[in-house]
Amino acid sequence: MTMRKNIIIFAICLSVIFTLVTGCIDEAESGGISENVTGQQAESALTLYSSNDILYQVSTINALLEGVYDGETDYESLKQHGDFGIGTFSGLDGEMIELDGIVYQIKDDGIAYPVNDSMTTPFAAVTFFDADTEDLITEPMNRSQTEDYLAALMPNRNIMYAIKINGTFDYVRTRSVPKQEKPYPKLVEVTKDQPTFELEQVNGVIVGYWLPSYVEGINVPGYHLHFITEDRTAGGHVLEFGITEGTVGIDNTHRFFMELPKSNEFLDSDLTKDTGSELEQVEK
Amino acid sequence: MTMRKNIIIFAICLSVIFTLVTGCIDEAESGGISENVTGQQAESALTLYSSNDILYQVSTINALLEGVYDGETDYESLKQHGDFGIGTFSGLDGEMIELDGIVYQIKDDGIAYPVNDSMTTPFAAVTFFDADTEDLITEPMNRSQTEDYLAALMPNRNIMYAIKINGTFDYVRTRSVPKQEKPYPKLVEVTKDQPTFELEQVNGVIVGYWLPSYVEGINVPGYHLHFITEDRTAGGHVLEFGITEGTVGIDNTHRFFMELPKSNEFLDSDLTKDTGSELEQVEK
Repeated sequence: MTMRKNIIIFAICLSVIFTLVTGCIDEAESGGISENVTGQQAESALTLYSSNDILYQVSTINALLEGVYDGETDYESLKQHGDFGIGTFSGLDGEMIELDGIVYQIKDDGIAYPVNDSMTTPFAAVTFFDADTEDLITEPMNRSQTEDYLAALMPNRNIMYAIKINGTFDYVRTRSVPKQEKPYPKLVEVTKDQPTFELEQVNGVIVGYWLPSYVEGINVPGYHLHFITEDRTAGGHVLEFGITEGTVGIDNTHRFFMELPKSNEFLDSDLTKDTGSELEQVEK
Repeated sequence: MTMRKNIIIFAICLSVIFTLVTGCIDEAESGGISENVTGQQAESALTLYSSNDILYQVSTINALLEGVYDGETDYESLKQHGDFGIGTFSGLDGEMIELDGIVYQIKDDGIAYPVNDSMTTPFAAVTFFDADTEDLITEPMNRSQTEDYLAALMPNRNIMYAIKINGTFDYVRTRSVPKQEKPYPKLVEVTKDQPTFELEQVNGVIVGYWLPSYVEGINVPGYHLHFITEDRTAGGHVLEFGITEGTVGIDNTHRFFMELPKSNEFLDSDLTKDTGSELEQVEK
């Protein structure tokens, strides 16, 4: 962190304390125009963040489908918005999984690599995972059966859910994506030749989301799951699995924050297409 | 503001200052799991809010189309997220316009009423308006011509734009919506009999947004504009207008924050429908 930031934060904190002490935050001022951070905005921001109930997203899935692969947000920034999540890397260089605040890169060899804070992402969705419900899986289920089981645990279909499954798996079929060179092909072209991996008799963790249909174009409606082994050596985007036992944590999420890239690559892309069918292809 | 909030904010500020003084914020800790607000989350939140570049939204347009009209977020809270915006009121009791931090309620008589902080909204979108570009309208234009003029001022079609037009109008045709009683009808039923108003030779301000197509289901793709007269006595949802001269401010917005309601009314509604055609009907 730079000294300049230190000074700014310090000044904001002092102003918040001063505002509280002098009792300046009242209803009369709450609607005032502000060019900079006010005590009330700071309060609002802090109140929001104290909930940990935010799905924070970089870019849109439509942009990724269109081949907008240059990373803009670095992982140091991303981790400030969540300790749990999925995504990819600049140049579409593998599948990303974040777990317990540590980010892993599953490259096209299926191996999990460490990730530097200076690495960047063109698309990611993270949250501070804090399970609202925890349940046990005690009998063998494949992916489809697990999805039905998860569905019964979700109180409704209109909010967002972060999902964490810690378990013992008969098998997990994953895929990753190879790093692309410019001009970038569309995602549906890349995944036609995606490398897939079969992990057998393995302990590990599934990390991902179930999102409502109204996120279409912005993120992936329904389930989107990544996997990493217990020893954090392998994983990828989940295609299929058989779980024998495990624990399921679900984090009901009512807040969504999307950060749109400022790169010309993003701004010039065509995000108006109906990408439903392409999305179905690339997720399989 | 309650004493409890005061104490929490004060404690957060102290912890931020303590963290800064002791130099505890470094890269090594940035990925840590946090149950509560950490100095780094606070920093992140404050950095975000200092940008004023956030479109903050309550609920989804699909929920409003389905008749989810009970307000949940009060205007005191909403104003913490913006001094400019549009929306509606609990029970669909009129059109909302916020300008310079003051909220107005245009009821079904076309008159603008003051709004108490304790009143609530089922759907609203606000931002801290800070124009990136300012341009002049110097020749007469109708709505369609003005939309073309605005389109030429937007650098791309992939981010969100807040729009403010301060001008002299030959006429402005607006509509409002009457307060509904339960069981709430769908929005498309309500707007079939909407009261419309013709304001002639009037100065006033148009407040609204142009949003990308990928917000479909979440908000209104394209233009969504409300109007209020210069003397703040009348207005509504804009159907048509003729402007003779004015100033146009556009605020390019790269960040989007959506707060989903926790009410059963929202959670139990069917948000899976394709609402494109209904939306077109209710916006006219």
